[in-house]
Parts: sequence; C-alpha cells; structure tokens
Amino acid sequence: MRLSEADIDRVLEEDIRFGDLTVRALAIGEKPGRMVFTARRDLVLCGSDEASRLLSSLGASVIFAAQTGTCVEKGALLLEAEGTAAALHAGWKTAQTLMEWASGVATLTREIVAAARLVAPRIAVVCTRKAVPFTRQLSFKAIIAGGAECHRLGLFDTIMLFDEHRPFLTKPNDLNAIITKLKEYAPERAIMVEVTSEADAFGAAEAMAYVVQHEKFTPNILARVVLRRKRVDGRPVIAAAGGITAQNAGDHAKAGVDTLVTSALFYAKPVDIQVRISSL
Amino acid sequence: MRLSEADIDRVLEEDIRFGDLTVRALAIGEKPGRMVFTARRDLVLCGSDEASRLLSSLGASVIFAAQTGTCVEKGALLLEAEGTAAALHAGWKTAQTLMEWASGVATLTREIVAAARLVAPRIAVVCTRKAVPFTRQLSFKAIIAGGAECHRLGLFDTIMLFDEHRPFLTKPNDLNAIITKLKEYAPERAIMVEVTSEADAFGAAEAMAYVVQHEKFTPNILARVVLRRKRVDGRPVIAAAGGITAQNAGDHAKAGVDTLVTSALFYAKPVDIQVRISSL
Amino acid sequence: MRLSEADIDRVLEEDIRFGDLTVRALAIGEKPGRMVFTARRDLVLCGSDEASRLLSSLGASVIFAAQTGTCVEKGALLLEAEGTAAALHAGWKTAQTLMEWASGVATLTREIVAAARLVAPRIAVVCTRKAVPFTRQLSFKAIIAGGAECHRLGLFDTIMLFDEHRPFLTKPNDLNAIITKLKEYAPERAIMVEVTSEADAFGAAEAMAYVVQHEKFTPNILARVVLRRKRVDGRPVIAAAGGITAQNAGDHAKAGVDTLVTSALFYAKPVDIQVRISSL
Amino acid sequence: MRLSEADIDRVLEEDIRFGDLTVRALAIGEKPGRMVFTARRDLVLCGSDEASRLLSSLGASVIFAAQTGTCVEKGALLLEAEGTAAALHAGWKTAQTLMEWASGVATLTREIVAAARLVAPRIAVVCTRKAVPFTRQLSFKAIIAGGAECHRLGLFDTIMLFDEHRPFLTKPNDLNAIITKLKEYAPERAIMVEVTSEADAFGAAEAMAYVVQHEKFTPNILARVVLRRKRVDGRPVIAAAGGITAQNAGDHAKAGVDTLVTSALFYAKPVDIQVRISSL
Amino acid sequence: MRLSEADIDRVLEEDIRFGDLTVRALAIGEKPGRMVFTARRDLVLCGSDEASRLLSSLGASVIFAAQTGTCVEKGALLLEAEGTAAALHAGWKTAQTLMEWASGVATLTREIVAAARLVAPRIAVVCTRKAVPFTRQLSFKAIIAGGAECHRLGLFDTIMLFDEHRPFLTKPNDLNAIITKLKEYAPERAIMVEVTSEADAFGAAEAMAYVVQHEKFTPNILARVVLRRKRVDGRPVIAAAGGITAQNAGDHAKAGVDTLVTSALFYAKPVDIQVRISSL
Amino acid sequence: MRLSEADIDRVLEEDIRFGDLTVRALAIGEKPGRMVFTARRDLVLCGSDEASRLLSSLGASVIFAAQTGTCVEKGALLLEAEGTAAALHAGWKTAQTLMEWASGVATLTREIVAAARLVAPRIAVVCTRKAVPFTRQLSFKAIIAGGAECHRLGLFDTIMLFDEHRPFLTKPNDLNAIITKLKEYAPERAIMVEVTSEADAFGAAEAMAYVVQHEKFTPNILARVVLRRKRVDGRPVIAAAGGITAQNAGDHAKAGVDTLVTSALFYAKPVDIQVRISSL
Repeated sequence: MRLSEADIDRVLEEDIRFGDLTVRALAIGEKPGRMVFTARRDLVLCGSDEASRLLSSLGASVIFAAQTGTCVEKGALLLEAEGTAAALHAGWKTAQTLMEWASGVATLTREIVAAARLVAPRIAVVCTRKAVPFTRQLSFKAIIAGGAECHRLGLFDTIMLFDEHRPFLTKPNDLNAIITKLKEYAPERAIMVEVTSEADAFGAAEAMAYVVQHEKFTPNILARVVLRRKRVDGRPVIAAAGGITAQNAGDHAKAGVDTLVTSALFYAKPVDIQVRISSL
Repeated sequence: MRLSEADIDRVLEEDIRFGDLTVRALAIGEKPGRMVFTARRDLVLCGSDEASRLLSSLGASVIFAAQTGTCVEKGALLLEAEGTAAALHAGWKTAQTLMEWASGVATLTREIVAAARLVAPRIAVVCTRKAVPFTRQLSFKAIIAGGAECHRLGLFDTIMLFDEHRPFLTKPNDLNAIITKLKEYAPERAIMVEVTSEADAFGAAEAMAYVVQHEKFTPNILARVVLRRKRVDGRPVIAAAGGITAQNAGDHAKAGVDTLVTSALFYAKPVDIQVRISSL
Repeated sequence: MRLSEADIDRVLEEDIRFGDLTVRALAIGEKPGRMVFTARRDLVLCGSDEASRLLSSLGASVIFAAQTGTCVEKGALLLEAEGTAAALHAGWKTAQTLMEWASGVATLTREIVAAARLVAPRIAVVCTRKAVPFTRQLSFKAIIAGGAECHRLGLFDTIMLFDEHRPFLTKPNDLNAIITKLKEYAPERAIMVEVTSEADAFGAAEAMAYVVQHEKFTPNILARVVLRRKRVDGRPVIAAAGGITAQNAGDHAKAGVDTLVTSALFYAKPVDIQVRISSL
Repeated sequence: MRLSEADIDRVLEEDIRFGDLTVRALAIGEKPGRMVFTARRDLVLCGSDEASRLLSSLGASVIFAAQTGTCVEKGALLLEAEGTAAALHAGWKTAQTLMEWASGVATLTREIVAAARLVAPRIAVVCTRKAVPFTRQLSFKAIIAGGAECHRLGLFDTIMLFDEHRPFLTKPNDLNAIITKLKEYAPERAIMVEVTSEADAFGAAEAMAYVVQHEKFTPNILARVVLRRKRVDGRPVIAAAGGITAQNAGDHAKAGVDTLVTSALFYAKPVDIQVRISSL
Repeated sequence: MRLSEADIDRVLEEDIRFGDLTVRALAIGEKPGRMVFTARRDLVLCGSDEASRLLSSLGASVIFAAQTGTCVEKGALLLEAEGTAAALHAGWKTAQTLMEWASGVATLTREIVAAARLVAPRIAVVCTRKAVPFTRQLSFKAIIAGGAECHRLGLFDTIMLFDEHRPFLTKPNDLNAIITKLKEYAPERAIMVEVTSEADAFGAAEAMAYVVQHEKFTPNILARVVLRRKRVDGRPVIAAAGGITAQNAGDHAKAGVDTLVTSALFYAKPVDIQVRISSL
Repeated sequence: MRLSEADIDRVLEEDIRFGDLTVRALAIGEKPGRMVFTARRDLVLCGSDEASRLLSSLGASVIFAAQTGTCVEKGALLLEAEGTAAALHAGWKTAQTLMEWASGVATLTREIVAAARLVAPRIAVVCTRKAVPFTRQLSFKAIIAGGAECHRLGLFDTIMLFDEHRPFLTKPNDLNAIITKLKEYAPERAIMVEVTSEADAFGAAEAMAYVVQHEKFTPNILARVVLRRKRVDGRPVIAAAGGITAQNAGDHAKAGVDTLVTSALFYAKPVDIQVRISSL
C-alpha cells in the first residue's frame, strides 16, 4: 500500500514547515552525518518505506531500510541514512515517530494473530473501520504488515446490516426478508449481518447471510452458535466482534469462529526505536 | 483550534468516498431519523464541533452539541442530530470514532493534569511532538481541551538543544558556549536544553538556559536538581520528560519541577460513546 | 454520494480561475437575472446537487433543483437559479456540462438496465473500474442514479482472479488450489474469478468461486454455462462481461446470467440540456 | 502539457488507495514480471507519459514508452515496463484506461482534422470548453496530441459575446455598440461573437469582430456568409460551431470557414489497448 | 474572481494552524466583541470579500463589508464584524494583511491608470505574468479592482513571440515568415510580438502582428513608432513595456500607444488599514 | 526550509497549466537548448533550489545552481540548465520571477541587518507575521537567507499581549496581573508584550515580561527606555517595532535595543536577474 506524495509532504510539514530553528541557530546544517535506527525490542516493522521516502525528500541518502512486515529482534538495524545535519535532524523525529507508531500497530497485530492461530491455525483476524482519524491508510498498511486484514474499508465496499438500520425498515424484525432484499440488490456480494442476540444470530444464519458478526458474545455462546448454525458447506462465516484483544483472542478462537473482528489494533502503543546520530 | 474544511472533507472521505452501499441496498436513505450520542463513562469531551461540521456537511441538522473541553458524566448527552437515514448513517461511525478518540486524549490529559496538580497546583503539563502521524492538529486540540498545552509545535517554533546536535559542534561539551551562541542568535526566545545527566543539568542551569528538560531522571534526582539549581528568580524552568504517565505524574510533581513533558497523551485509549439511531 | 468541497472547487476552477473576462468587459456583472435549465429529451437526471452547490458557492440562489435519479420528460424543469449576471454566467456552462455529462451516464445506465430487466427482472447491472480518469466518484454516482451498481470500486475492495495473475503462481492452472487459497485468506469475502474459456468457467464453478465472470462469452455459450454449472443453491453467481451494450443486454439477460458487467456506461454521450438566461 | 504530481497521485488513488487485495491474497507481490501495452487498432497515442509516471511511482521500471502524439499502427508497442507483480498489477488498469481514453480523444481528433483538411488544408479545428468534468487538462492534452487546438480555455482567457449576455445590456440588439465597447475594453484581444442568425452574422462582421462564430448554420448558409462577409484582409475569422462531427467536418470545411469548433472530441470512445503480463 | 475554499483555508492556516496561544493563555476566548477596519488613507479596496469569508469561517458575523473595487476616503469604514474574542483575534491580522496588501495593489493600479488616462482617456493598462509567487489569482483580482486588466494569464492563453524563441527557429530573423506561421496555426488569436529594436518593431508591424509590444523603448521613439507604423485601421496595437511606473505612465501615454504593460503593480506597498477591537 | 512538492506544482501551474501555446505554434518544443540566469546587480540569492526543482520537474537538467543565502556580485552565474526548448520556455519566467522576488526579499534583509549591525553587531533583526498572503513559507525562507529571523510564525507559537486583548480582560490596565497570569499559564515560554506608551513599557518591564516590544517609539525614547529599564541580567529584551526600514535601522540600533521587528522585508522590490536562452 502506497502513501501518496501529498501524504509524505503532509507528515513532513507537520514538523518542519518553517524549518529547524535549532539547527539554524547552531549553524551546523551543512555538516555531514549518519543516522541509525535500531529496534529497542522485538517488533514487526512498518513505516520504513515512508521513513525512507521522507528522508530522501529532505536530501538524505538511505543506505539501508528493512522491509515493512519483517519481524526483527531487539537491537536489529531498521534504517540507516547519511546526509547533512540539516537533513538528518529535519527527518529524525518524524521518521522515528512514524515507524514507532506503525510498528506498534503491526506488532500488536502479530500478537493477536499469533494468539488466535495458536489455537485455530486458519482463523482470520480483521480490523474494523474505527481507525484513528486521518490515519486509515497507514493503519491498514500496518495491520496488513502484522498479518491481519481489513474487514470493511468504509461504508462503500461492503453490505453490513446493523440494528441501527432497522428502525427505518417497514418490518424491522423480519431478518429473512431484509437479507433476501440485500442479496437481490447485490447478488455478487457477501451479505454481512451484525447481531446482538442469539435469536438474531440464528435468524441471520437461516436467512443465509454470508457472514454473521456476533457483537459481544461470550466464547461459550459463540461455541454454541458455531455448533448449531454452521452448515456443512461451512456457511455462514461466523465472526466475533466487540472487545477482542490479545488476551482473549485465544478463547474466542477456541470457540470455533472463522473471523475475529477488532478495533484494538488501531490503539496499539508505539514500540520504542532507538535513533543514533553521529557526524562523519 | 479550527480544522480546515479540507480536513473535514478528508475524514469524511475516509469512510464514505463512494457512498453507503448498505443504505442504498436497503433503500432507506430518505427516511427521517434522529441520532443521539451519549457518554458511556465520565469523560472530557473533544471533537463535538468537528462531528457537528461533518454531520452538517452531510445534510443533517445538529440540534445539540456539548462544547469541546466540557467534563461530562456518564450518560450525558453529547450530540444530537436529525436528518435522513442516509445522512445519519453516513456520519455515524466517523463522528463517533472522532469524538471517542479525541475525547480519549482529552480525558487522559485531564487525569494526568489532575494527578500532577493535586500535588503541585501550578505545575504545567505539556505534550511532545510525537503525535500519531497525520493527527497533530486534532491531537493538540484534544490535549488543550484536557487542560494541558503543547511543548513544541514542531522544529520551527522553539530552540531545543539535544545531545544529538552536539556531534556536529566543534566543542560538543562546552554547554556554556553553546547556550550563549543560541541566546545570541535568538535573544527573544526561551532557550531549552534537554539533558540526560546530572552534570549537564547543572551545566545548562549555569549557562542560564531558560528551560532545562531532564530526560528520564527519577523523582529523587529531580528533587535534588530543583533544590540545587533553581535560582531565586525561579529560573531555570525545570522540566521532567521521559515516561511520564498518569501513574507517576504525582511523584514527579512532588519533586518540585515546573513542567511535565509527556508523549503518553497521544496514545490514550478512546472512550466509549453510545450512539442511538431512531426513526421519526 | 457526496462530492467533497475540494471537488466542487476544482470543477469550478477549471472554468473560472481568473474570472469571466467577457462579463467584466461588458460591465454587466451586477445586473440581476434568472437561469433555467430544462431537459431537451427524456432523461435520468444526475448532477443537479453538484450544480446547485457550485451555483450557490458563486453567490446565486437555487430556487429549484430536481433530484438526482429522477426520470424526467423532455421539457421538464431541472434547475432554476437567480443571482447576478456575474454569478449566473460564471456557473452556466460548468453546471450545464456537469449535468449533461452525468445525466448522459445515468440515462444510458437506465436504458441498459431496462433492456436487461425486460427479459430478466432481477438481473443486476454493474460497472467496471474503467471510469474516465479523474471522474470515478461522479461516474459511480451517475451509474447508481441510473439504477445500476458498482462491481469493484478499485483493487482494494474485492478479490478477483484474472488470467494475468496466474503467471506469478507456482501452479497457474490449478484453479481449485488457487481459489481455495483465496478463500482461506479472506473467508468473509466473495471470491470472484474472471474466466476466458469454458474449461476455466467449469473449473471456477467447481472450486466454489462465489462469482464467475465470463469475459466475452456469447449468449449461447453463457446459456450453456448457466444450465450446466448453476447449483441448486443458486451458486456461483454467473456474470457476463466484455462488450455489453444497450443493444445486446437483452440477449445476455436471456441467457440466464445473474449480472451484467459493463464499461459502456462511462462513455455515454452527454444528453442535451437547454439553458435560458434572462434579466430580472 | 504536464499533469501535476498531485494529479498522478489522484488517478492512482482512484484505484489503489488501500492496496491490491487480490495480489496480497495470492502472495505473489514480490515476483518479477513484465507488462507490455500494444495497440489493438491504428491510433494516435496520448497518455503514455502519464502512464510511465504512474508506473514509476509504483516502483516499476519503464523500458519503453512511445511518445504522445505519435500515430501508431495496430499491433505496435506502446509501453513496456518491468517490476514486481505488485507494481505491475497496481498500475495495469489505471495505465491502460488512461491511455485508452486519452488516445481515443486524440484519435478522433486526428480523424476530424484529417476530414476537414482533406478539403481545406489550412482549416483549424478547435475544441469547446465542454470537457468531461475534472478532465479538462488531460482532454486538452489529448486534443492537441491529435492535431487540434483549444478554442477557449475557460471564461478567463477570451472575450466571447453570447446571446445570453444581451438581456443584461441596455441596447441588446446594437451589436455595433457592444463590439465597440468590448474592443475598447481590451484593445489587445481578438473579440469573438457567437451568432445564431444570419442578420447577427452580418452585424458582427460589420462591427469588425475578430471572430464570428456561427452556431448551427448549415454548410450552405456558411458558404454564403463566407462569400458575402469575408473582407479582402481575411477578416473576420469565420468559425462554424454546433454539431460538428467527423462525418460532417468535410462539408463545413468546403463552405470555406476558417475554423471548426467542436465538443465531439471530448466524448470519443476509448480505443482498445492490449496488455500482456508475464513473469520473468 | 472567486478564491477557492482551499485558498481561504490556506491563508487562515498560515496564521492559526495550532490556535491562538495568547488568547488561550488569557482565557478570554468566549468574550463577545466587535472589530472595525477603517482606511488610514484614500484607497481602492480589494480583499474585503475574502476577509469576510475568512472571518465567517472562524465563526464571526460580518455586519458590513465595503465592496472590492470601491474607492474610499481616509477614515471610511471598510469592514465590521462581531464575534467572540477568539474569532476576532484569530482573523484580525490575516484579514488586515490581506486587505492591506490587495488594496495596495488596487490603489497603485488606479494611480497608474489615472495617470495614463489623464493624457489618453482610452489607453489600456495591463499587468504582466510576473506576480509574486503563489499570489497570481489574488494579484489579478486586485489589479482588476484597480481598473486595469491582465495581459497574459500564463503561457497557455496567448501567443507572444519573444527574442528567446528565435534561436530555435530555422530562420530566426525572418519575422514575416514567423508571424505568418503563428497566424496560420491559430487563426482566431491575436498574435503578439515583443520587440527590442526599432527594426523589429517595423518588421512585426509589416508582418501584420496584432499587437507589437515594445520593450524598453523611450516615449520619443514610441511616438515615432506610432506615427510611422499605425495603420489607418488602427492596427497594430502598440504596447509599451519595461519599467512602466506611475511616474512615467503619462509620458508613455502621450506617445500615443494603445496599451501599457507593467509588472510594477505586483510590488505595490500595502496601504495602512486601522483595526479597532472592542468588547461588547 | 523545504517547500512541499505541492507548492512546486502550484507555482508551476500558475503559469503553464494548459501548456505553452507559443512554443506549440512555433513547433520548436523538441529543440535542445541552454538557459542561463545571471545577476544584474549585487544580490543575496534565494529561490535557486525551488527554481532547480521546478526546472527538473519539467524535464530540464540543472547543471549549476548557486546556493540560497549566497551573496553574489553583479554578473555572477546563478543557475544554468539544459533541456528542450519546451522545458526551458515552460520554466523560464516562473524560475526567474521566483528567484527575483525571493532574492529581493533576501537582499533587502541583508541591507537592514547590515545597517543595524554596523552600529550594534549583536542586534537581531526579525520579521513580523504580515507576509504577503500565500507566501509565508517562501518569505520566511528568504528572510532567513538574508540573515534575519522570524519573530512569530503565527498566532500559535508565541504569547504576545497586544492592547487589543485588554478590552476582554477584567482589569485591562493591571499589566502586572496579566503578565503573571501568562507566565503561570506557560512557564516555559518567553512572554512578549507590545506596548504603545512609555508607562506601559515600564509596567511590562517591571512585571518581568521576557520581551517588551515598543511600537512606534522614536530612537530617543527607546534609548531612554533601554537606560532606565534594562536590568543587569540583560532583561527584558527590548524590541523596537513599527516603521523600521533600511534607512532608520541604524538609528534604532544606536538606541541600544536588542531586536528590530519589521514588516518591510516582505515588500522588497524584486532584484533583476538576466536570463539568456540559446540553442544547442
């Protein structure tokens, strides 16, 4: 996934719009130097390509950049660049913050995926649409780097029925009629339904929804749902959502669901990345 | 702080670029409805004006919006809007996510400020530049809503000497000469120095830096620094940075520092906001 | 579907960046007037909301605007606005061109949908990704206004296997293994496969692809595919693509396919809209 | 004519905003490959430079690109690129659609120009301002590539009197006074007048308009206008507009007019371009 | 001429991106107030509509705004707004600077136009393309407000032959052939030629250029050119360029030229506008 | 200070949006050539990097570019580029205007700084926020190139009390209370106060403002202020503002102030730069 030039510009501008006052005051801008980013802990890297692009656009030369999606150990070299003190200092914190944050998301993603797949090797982990405002593209990139996928990209790409749609329908409780209508409107698409009660879970399954997303069901109840409603052809896809974290991902996976849907990935803590700057 | 029209557009576009497929499929877009946002916990609100603007730009009418910066109790009404089902569904999650995230930052900020001011009523709490990429403006707004302020807005607005600048200087250890140079370059500005050792802390204070920022000093050592280096005119400003959280803010405040500098605010967990949608 | 403020700005700027030289030279800018848009033929309207927004942003008052998606007869009033001669002349051709073009797409869409549904009342008509560069959002809006839908919004929202992916796979001809891999990667999604031979059409159906898209199959062969490969549960969805037009949509529909996929909609001829400007 | 980086970004983003889900699911992104674009019919090429830029920005290497404006024969190589499967698939349809559409405009332009110049070797063919919304720059580029030119770029660059201006003037029928006023306002500019009646055509010529544009005059009447109103110094320039197509361009040219003004070019059908992708 | 929403946003962002720190520190943002802009000298106003738009977008109410293009006397009211102290202070300097600068351009323009027209009532004054970078649209607007016009909007809208084109031509000195070629290429357009010698001035006139622009000719020589080369039909248009200022505009006008071309307008000194802010 | 890609695009688009009509008409675009920029007077260069970037983005090769901030003598080579006639002509005036304008600002800045430092070698010269609309970033860059600095970047980065804030305060005349409040709000920041009377000047100094900015004080009175109010620790910083120019900078410097604050730099006349274009 490629961030646009405008986004690289924007992230740079947040920090260096009117230049680096300290470097100007110290009159060190023209001195040559090297900047090295290393992992302070085991992590899944994301953001190294954006960091490289922004350092290059500042005039620095990127000598090495580990690839997005790589699992690296504590101490590993992530990125190395050479350039003037002006270029290195201009890009330092922006590159560091971007990689720390994106790698934080990627690393937590990998943890949740690992926890779930330990129990259920083929389970899918997907994120919701609730990304931090303005970060959707970078968030999705980091989540994919961590081994998960996106559930819905926005309102535009999938059909998902929520309870909140129903007050506007003539027969809000006739799940069968509603799902049939959705399938006729869009025969090509996998109709998804979010349910908040066991009754609706069964109703949606009977109405042949492609995916039934169970909001805040306990693993026990989910196990029961899987047992009773999963047909022999593997349908419907049983998704569990609401409060999924690295801690409870395994329990949900054990229940036999196909997919874990989580917003937790967006709010991962950044991982620490060490930066050392030296003169040449 | 006012987000630009382009930013309101951008946050909307992240979710509704090609419209709302589900509402189209259900053919409910023209039905009138009401959407109500309430707090699921005590919180400091931020983002209600942006939420209002984006709902308005979708054609909904905002009937009530609590003000950014307000402390509200669990259950309180935050925002109420009326409009077509199309408008309400188009804005629902974007408005909710924006308010949940920004209010999360504001609420954590209030907690850290409260914890610090319980001990030291005049202490200042300020954030670093390490905002989540692309969110700097909204993050700063939320932090101010929570009662803290910004430390540096970017590289452009303040002079702060880091250890990382020194390799490029002829006499990297002569703090007095360096600070004198900075003060001459910019007589109007408050020169800030980040120090990582007690020796440099004392050197920076003697060289009459305006602010000495102590990176990862324990409260005990900070107390000693305050005792020994704070002059009768209140200078230098003693700032503590590195790992400040709601848990340890009080301890640092007790040490007598003037300012707490923290990145923790940017990574606050969102607070839950309930949304109910009804037909009219 | 809502165009952003930036897009309304952009379409205006294409025509009036440095103002209206003729109106300046005639010194008539302040005179009040009325502008009326009427249909020169039966048409499905699209673009009246964008036309209204651009006229409003020029300072004119929109008195009436028929709704996007409406079928109107020759002579019907589409949009009426009042304002200064400067505002009316500034918006005239831009509003007209936008409505003529978008309504052209909507009108052709309606024709193809009508032709297909005459034969097969539940058939779906969807457009490809081959919109005229820079017009994707407006094109999709017009197509939806005309009663069709979007097939794929881009590379990001759907999984569709093309022959062009196969050279990079280890076993390019093992459709079953490929489709199984895709389904495991994304259990929630409806896997689509484009096929260009009858053998692959059968292979994709047997591998339980959700949608099999038949590229340039004749109606006769399509009928055979439907007969032989459609299972009792209605799967797979049979889509016909490649050269679908208003002329041959009925023939394809008769073959019993579920979906017609076409690029023709994007290249519809604009429909004529008459504009009359008078002084007040 | 150079599209901005922002436009290259925009056209890419339309298709690959959140990446290529199919290539991710197939896990083939890193495989090296080649992509070759060839003409499926004789055509005038346009868009190869934009296609090259967008492929390069995706990380592919462009090995060959024929030049915009070139007439090529069926089967000719238009563009060849090498890169990862991820880069090639990300750019494939966007590059193809852009070249097909822009070359469609260029090719139709060449046909109309050829038809007109067969009869009148020095006749000029120019386009109106009625480009498809958002495509003006690329449309004009394609039209110039095809051998025609632009008539007006917008409201800002030329003075052209329409009937629609007249209601706001004190003496709407005094063409002589109106044209004199326009000439005094802008002595440097070539005053243009659109006329819809033979009486006005003569009035505009007598008032020494630089260009008289005849809206929907038949070739016969145009020939009479040329005969009676063209002065010995070649003035006024006689332009024919309204419904000019490749079919009737010759007839209009035969009438002796100087310029053909047409909107037909914008709505040209795309020309087919074949794309083949292979692994390396 | 209408600045885009994006431009209004941009000019605001230059000053208030992260809010108004002083107003926050004083905690006066919610207090109601009034802001009044008055002329400190006689001036031609420009920018009041942009100032109004930016104040409105900050939440203030504009009570009065004099119209762009108005000549006002010292002390006259230009703009009055009411709103919170936060809104008024956020817009104060931006609105003031914009009006001072744009009115400075408009006022100088009026002076040059007046000086020239005192001598030659029908002379045209036009500006070059050398606007201050990023200000072209606002500059042109101010120049038009001051009673002059634009010469060329850019490279795209006019044909003007410079000496700098000639090295690339086969017969660089054959002005007649060059101009004939240009006229054939674009029969509708007024061909312009910049000349730097009397010989070329005569050559261009003989070759029937529509406009001959005389670069840095003295008024005496210009008078001779007018006398010898102006034909009875008023052609060619004689333009004088290079170093035209308010001081020498009259002398050039006396020489009988049709048009004065100047870059001086872009670099006008801003005019002082007084701002008073009061509480309500 | 680095202009964004979007800004380079924007400045180019101002001039070449729809291409270069003259070069097209002459059919010389493909001819190779050289373009050389030299100083017509002694100047301080600014803008050569932006000129280089824009020429490169047009496809020309920059062979030499003198560095921003360099003092060059009349006749010196500033920039040299080779490329097609199309590329050179497309960039010519844009590159020239940008360098002439930015170098004009830098050169005047150098003059004012020199005039002030002749008298007071350590005095600081800083600019206000009143940049020409849309040029803030380039203006600041030019001012820094000329040896001065920025005073305030906007409302966001500094605390400065104006008389205009006081009507909203409970005790508008209690400078001591106001300044104390500001210092408590932001202990890290250097509080600045603008004063317009000697009484306030003394009040602000006594209240320990960090910077006291004296608006339109004569040098004589400033000398008295310095004498009476400057404490032994060098505080407060005494700034003089209002009407500072190259002519009177020395007088103000002689008064002993620390800082000169001026808006004059923004309105510098461009310096002449010669451009020669030759064929190769």
